[in-house]
Amino acid sequence: MATTVREAALDLFRAHEMTTIFGNPGSTELPMLAELPSDFRYVLGLQELVVVGMADGYAQATGRVTHVNLHTAPGVGNAVGGIYNAQSNKSPLLITAGQQVRAQITMEANLTNREPTYGPQPYVKWSHEPPRAQDVPAALARAIHHASLPPRGPAFVSIPMDDWGQPADEETLPLTLARRVGGRAVPDPAAVTALARRIEAARRPVMVAGPDIEAAGGWQDAVRLAERQRMAVLATPATGGGKLGFPENHPLFQGLLAPAIGPAGMQLAEYDLVLVVGSSVFPYYPYIPGALLGPDTELVQLTSDPSEAARAPMGEAIVADVGLALAALNGAIGESEREPPAPRPEPGPPAEAEPLSGSQAMQALAVAWPADGIVVVETPSSTAALRNRLRLSRPGSYYFSSSGGLGFGISAALGVQLAEPSRPVVCVLGEGSAQYGITALWTAAAYKLPVTFLVLRNEEYMILKWFAEFEQEQGLPGLDLPGLDVAAVARGYGVPAREVTGAEELTDALTEAIAVQDGPRLVQVPCASGMWLE
Amino acid sequence: MATTVREAALDLFRAHEMTTIFGNPGSTELPMLAELPSDFRYVLGLQELVVVGMADGYAQATGRVTHVNLHTAPGVGNAVGGIYNAQSNKSPLLITAGQQVRAQITMEANLTNREPTYGPQPYVKWSHEPPRAQDVPAALARAIHHASLPPRGPAFVSIPMDDWGQPADEETLPLTLARRVGGRAVPDPAAVTALARRIEAARRPVMVAGPDIEAAGGWQDAVRLAERQRMAVLATPATGGGKLGFPENHPLFQGLLAPAIGPAGMQLAEYDLVLVVGSSVFPYYPYIPGALLGPDTELVQLTSDPSEAARAPMGEAIVADVGLALAALNGAIGESEREPPAPRPEPGPPAEAEPLSGSQAMQALAVAWPADGIVVVETPSSTAALRNRLRLSRPGSYYFSSSGGLGFGISAALGVQLAEPSRPVVCVLGEGSAQYGITALWTAAAYKLPVTFLVLRNEEYMILKWFAEFEQEQGLPGLDLPGLDVAAVARGYGVPAREVTGAEELTDALTEAIAVQDGPRLVQVPCASGMWLE
Repeated sequence: MATTVREAALDLFRAHEMTTIFGNPGSTELPMLAELPSDFRYVLGLQELVVVGMADGYAQATGRVTHVNLHTAPGVGNAVGGIYNAQSNKSPLLITAGQQVRAQITMEANLTNREPTYGPQPYVKWSHEPPRAQDVPAALARAIHHASLPPRGPAFVSIPMDDWGQPADEETLPLTLARRVGGRAVPDPAAVTALARRIEAARRPVMVAGPDIEAAGGWQDAVRLAERQRMAVLATPATGGGKLGFPENHPLFQGLLAPAIGPAGMQLAEYDLVLVVGSSVFPYYPYIPGALLGPDTELVQLTSDPSEAARAPMGEAIVADVGLALAALNGAIGESEREPPAPRPEPGPPAEAEPLSGSQAMQALAVAWPADGIVVVETPSSTAALRNRLRLSRPGSYYFSSSGGLGFGISAALGVQLAEPSRPVVCVLGEGSAQYGITALWTAAAYKLPVTFLVLRNEEYMILKWFAEFEQEQGLPGLDLPGLDVAAVARGYGVPAREVTGAEELTDALTEAIAVQDGPRLVQVPCASGMWLE
Repeated sequence: MATTVREAALDLFRAHEMTTIFGNPGSTELPMLAELPSDFRYVLGLQELVVVGMADGYAQATGRVTHVNLHTAPGVGNAVGGIYNAQSNKSPLLITAGQQVRAQITMEANLTNREPTYGPQPYVKWSHEPPRAQDVPAALARAIHHASLPPRGPAFVSIPMDDWGQPADEETLPLTLARRVGGRAVPDPAAVTALARRIEAARRPVMVAGPDIEAAGGWQDAVRLAERQRMAVLATPATGGGKLGFPENHPLFQGLLAPAIGPAGMQLAEYDLVLVVGSSVFPYYPYIPGALLGPDTELVQLTSDPSEAARAPMGEAIVADVGLALAALNGAIGESEREPPAPRPEPGPPAEAEPLSGSQAMQALAVAWPADGIVVVETPSSTAALRNRLRLSRPGSYYFSSSGGLGFGISAALGVQLAEPSRPVVCVLGEGSAQYGITALWTAAAYKLPVTFLVLRNEEYMILKWFAEFEQEQGLPGLDLPGLDVAAVARGYGVPAREVTGAEELTDALTEAIAVQDGPRLVQVPCASGMWLE
């Protein structure tokens, strides 16, 4: 009997270790999902932003292309914000969506994906609807390869629902299944040598460490390079720091670069050479004009992303795999005798406030923190305090949506927990940011995923109030969130939840929740209004 | 002092009665929203799908272009599914989104809307980012005009956040503010006369009534035409029936056209002339092949939408305003002496089941139904039963997302209630469909909108199980929804909610909830598994 398109696709997914599917089904997806073999796992989300967020977390934590299955036009539509996040996070996703049967597309029957390749744009690397059923396996393979090549990101295939039962192209299928592509490339050796000499010769070099260090497996080499050259290390601005690039408790680590042109330029002015590794230059957010770079400072960027290289407003760029580039640099560079920067002080005890400040809440989390913990962060007004107080030092311990989009946190935490079942995952949220993908709490309960959710409840969109103050704006509607009780909603979704008030009580509640293995727990704490930087 | 872009925009919105803004704010929107004048009202949604859904309901119920304000790329991304719905519903929306300051776009600073005009595609009629600040008022005006012209729909403008404080173009501004455009057009009189003669000469004509009859104000003329010509009337398939086109308790009304090619073709085969008014031909959904139209049947479509005319797989089409076309037809047509079709029987008492069937639940709703009630429907497995048992007979009483996308119901109900504060609004949901825009429940509570929510809880995606059975598919993951308790979640959001079981108890609970004026109420009822057609 002939191999069907569906059988060929399942074999392709197996060949790429893609047997976990994140989805929200509709009628157009049923032919793919019927009789799903037992070596596949389907993780249901109740809204598409949640589905993509879970896959984004899973893809980042596993490093593997991850399959997202969506419902035709409206399902893809609901997912676009998540696809935007995933692209910014460089998450390799294969996104598939069903489509009307071929016979009903031209007449645009209900739920026809009218211009299917447009829907997820401009946030996918490749977008395609195969012209014939037998092209589906090759199209899926091509999308997987696109997603996996640098810079990694989502790729999309729209599949008419009557294609799955059609015969595959048996002649080309073995070749399709056997294909493997690799895109990790070492920089030109001459460029590496020249850069090594420049770093050695610098008076005061600094590394700005970005998320692609960790994603490229360059963590150890980043530490080694900084130590050999006694370089100060800054993290790229938190706005773009989807992952950490450097251990934040390391004596050479000097904290975060400011997320605005003027302040960042001033911060970098004390260095003569800025080596940006695995980051854009830079994920600025508020517009504070000023010098991008001092007149005596040079900048060199190592990135795997040609767009990051092209769009940077200053400096030189070398496009190659960030991990291999760091390894090559270490092979070409000597030990420096220069004076290392002074270590930054430990964070002091936070000022007492009632209700708790974000700094106090983050300190309470730091006290409860398990050595192998992973934090997924979506709390704009306390992210800086979290970074300062947790000072995470192990790769794969921090996830944040580098796009600035909301709806990532709860969902991504579930994906990370599925990928790392033996590590405790803590998701820190504001009650406002929690809403964009709130239904992921049902998935947490239904799949008994032992994530600990910490919700800081300040009854407002604090980051917007801070921004308004910065821009000297008043009288803004829509920034207050009265009566928004995430603990109550979580209980409605079957997640045991409690609200606590004091710092010690919060530490105790978190310690208890983190120890639980049988499902999610949520701890909510009323928080004072404010931006918490320390 | 010079008029700013912002002042000019506010005057433009006033000139078009657009003083209600539906939004979810981000930093890029603050300059527009600061010191919002007191004649404006801002309605906050906690996620963008909700924001667009509210505006969609409001725009349909008021008939006016409605302003949706979203956050740059991620906010637009989260809204795309809602924009898809709004386009299908022909809702005239002005969608604005903030954008990075102009100085930080080329470097792609964080939250830059990289290719802003792509984001909402392919679901907007026009998508634009003005090249200069002073072009913003004219761009907003153009988008309003695009949205309002037939076929109505969403139009999009991306606005760099530093534009609002810039000076407007004082020379062109008065002209911009004064512009009005109208697109209602009468069909060619020769075509009207010819069509009138064909209807008169038909042996057995049928009208298929679609949602644009109501939207075009053609309700009375549709009734008059059917009565004068003693025509049978069918509703366009429920899948595309975003609004009603004809009173469903009228003796000439024969029920709904089937949503698939074969069965619809057979249903129409008994007529010699099919007059489709204000609908696509047709919103088929499941693929059941067969004759599109019998050999002895002719079809003429009246539509305001050139795309609906072009894509129909059979028949003739006349593109013009549906309301004016019906009025013109009535002016040209005589009284017929033909035998009218037999009225369809009243719905009988539904079979008893435990838990309640969808038919029983809809019957309970029918008993509680207030004469001026409005229903917003998002319950795929009980929509047909609802139509059969409510038999609504007043225009503006029924809203459904004609796109097939979910996430419309709760949100649209709020928009409709805001537009029709004196009419009782009831929103009928499944517990699965309720999840896509669930956070709208917070807005319902926060704004004290007296919508009654009726949730049918069957612990599954029934419509998908029905579809799978139809396609003879088994072993599908992700179709069960255990432990999904909307009443509990609603209470978490501050909406008083109860669960009832028996039919009488349900009628009583609905009667009580509908009578409440001070805010939302939710009634949940466990339902038996099944598709409820009667």
